[in-house]
Amino acid sequence: MILVVKSGGEKALPEWKACFAEFAPGLEVRWWDDPAVDPAQVDYALVWEPEPGRLARMPKLRAIFGSGAGVDSIVADPHLPKGLPLVRCVPEEATQRMAEFVCWSVLALNKGARRLALAQARAAWDYFEPPYAAAERTVGIMGLGAMGMRSAEVLRAVGIPVVGWSRTRKSVAGVECFAGADELPAFLARSEVLVCLLPATPETRGLIAAPLLARLPRGAGLVQVGRGVQQVLPDILAALDDGQLSGAVLDVFEQEPLPADSPAWAHPKVIVTPHVASLPSRRERARYVAGCIARFERGEPLPNLYDPERGY
Amino acid sequence: MILVVKSGGEKALPEWKACFAEFAPGLEVRWWDDPAVDPAQVDYALVWEPEPGRLARMPKLRAIFGSGAGVDSIVADPHLPKGLPLVRCVPEEATQRMAEFVCWSVLALNKGARRLALAQARAAWDYFEPPYAAAERTVGIMGLGAMGMRSAEVLRAVGIPVVGWSRTRKSVAGVECFAGADELPAFLARSEVLVCLLPATPETRGLIAAPLLARLPRGAGLVQVGRGVQQVLPDILAALDDGQLSGAVLDVFEQEPLPADSPAWAHPKVIVTPHVASLPSRRERARYVAGCIARFERGEPLPNLYDPERGY
Repeated sequence: MILVVKSGGEKALPEWKACFAEFAPGLEVRWWDDPAVDPAQVDYALVWEPEPGRLARMPKLRAIFGSGAGVDSIVADPHLPKGLPLVRCVPEEATQRMAEFVCWSVLALNKGARRLALAQARAAWDYFEPPYAAAERTVGIMGLGAMGMRSAEVLRAVGIPVVGWSRTRKSVAGVECFAGADELPAFLARSEVLVCLLPATPETRGLIAAPLLARLPRGAGLVQVGRGVQQVLPDILAALDDGQLSGAVLDVFEQEPLPADSPAWAHPKVIVTPHVASLPSRRERARYVAGCIARFERGEPLPNLYDPERGY
Repeated sequence: MILVVKSGGEKALPEWKACFAEFAPGLEVRWWDDPAVDPAQVDYALVWEPEPGRLARMPKLRAIFGSGAGVDSIVADPHLPKGLPLVRCVPEEATQRMAEFVCWSVLALNKGARRLALAQARAAWDYFEPPYAAAERTVGIMGLGAMGMRSAEVLRAVGIPVVGWSRTRKSVAGVECFAGADELPAFLARSEVLVCLLPATPETRGLIAAPLLARLPRGAGLVQVGRGVQQVLPDILAALDDGQLSGAVLDVFEQEPLPADSPAWAHPKVIVTPHVASLPSRRERARYVAGCIARFERGEPLPNLYDPERGY
């Protein structure tokens, strides 16, 4: 059985091989662009941003694995083979790592971590009262899938009040849940720190923009760990400049890598991170994909399948 | 009743006055160096680093309040009036804020936040796998007072394994507790991230130095939120440079403000913060002190009294 890998660049292949050797010793792991691999012999593909049309040239391909939780870069391929299972990479570790990142981000906003980092860069002892205690700002989580649920649980354990919003109504212990477009304004009015954990779908494209930001309480914080296409970066920066937002942690961008000339990098109220919020280690992802392949080979159903109807 | 205040500089006095007006409207709040205040009329003092001998010149002083949890800068005064109650400022908010700061710090070390901040400063998309998931590194908390206990609780809720050490044995749910000098090496060997929450006493002076650091697992993290006199900064930086430590968050220093020429500022593995870990807002501290004074005036006992025997 052959698995071709396109994730992390060719330099990451030795690590992928070592990880799969541990969890799926029978699997032959090859680089996506390896000229010695016959596309007709490939069984599985583990990919991030595959070149359009390439997967369609693998006639015996049986399943596609995204190497991240979002598969929008894969379904954007107009020649994506129809009917093949496409598995989102959501090992438990990704959920837990996201919750940790959200917790770190919310605390960073409450404690003025960007200001602290800028002071350190100037070797300046900038003594100031941390802007907020945890209990003083309610966090609103948009998107109550596994990651949103676990994030809510962690935040509440730290002492942070949480409200939630999702397309269809969810129930989360200790969290007031809003649902659907009708209840979005009421949810936003409660969100003193807004955490976006939504998937990339046509409905969420361009959502984090001026009209939505204007509905937040003045001086709100923003944690964007959804997808870059959901945001209008100039609107976010404008809201920071006029005080509607007091700070932001941005992990995703419409163009990644974020260009070096983006004003987000140097903005004094923005923490930029390079799309690492929920990134599980390669070992964790290899274990997950190996487990999926083993189940699939036994005829069992695959988890976290992409659903074209739902859009994620 | 007159309360003199030396905390935050004279510029902070209007805010202190406004806060006390809310919680103790009968109290006259004056600046420590106000020439119009007769020292013989002062009832209470709220101080940080008072000049030695000054408190002794207030004959009717009835109680001294530190404006932080540690009062070592006050008891260092050789003329400190004997027998007067000295109250450490430990409102519940300080405990909670410390737990939040410890949580933020541990997550910052696990996620490579210093590397992320340095990359942002260069406008560089430095994509790397976050070094550790929360569950992968056990945090060892030195000092199991209210702050250590609450920190342990918060860290465990985030999914982080915790062990603890204290001078006398404590019991904390879900935390293996070590005690006394004999068990210190076993505790250190377990601490993949060491959090120092000890008070400043003769025994803890210079403790965070090469011999202690050498007992940690290689590549450990350090969060120093105790007191500056406990650490030997050159030893910490040497341990970071040779890989014994992988990263540190330092909130306290022997000399504060940390001098601009300290190598800690620019060290690529150090996050420097200006002694803000557990800082409650002035409003929170004023509420606490006002509450203490009200109890004291009713003849009730004061909380969090400095104990010369214990040293904190």
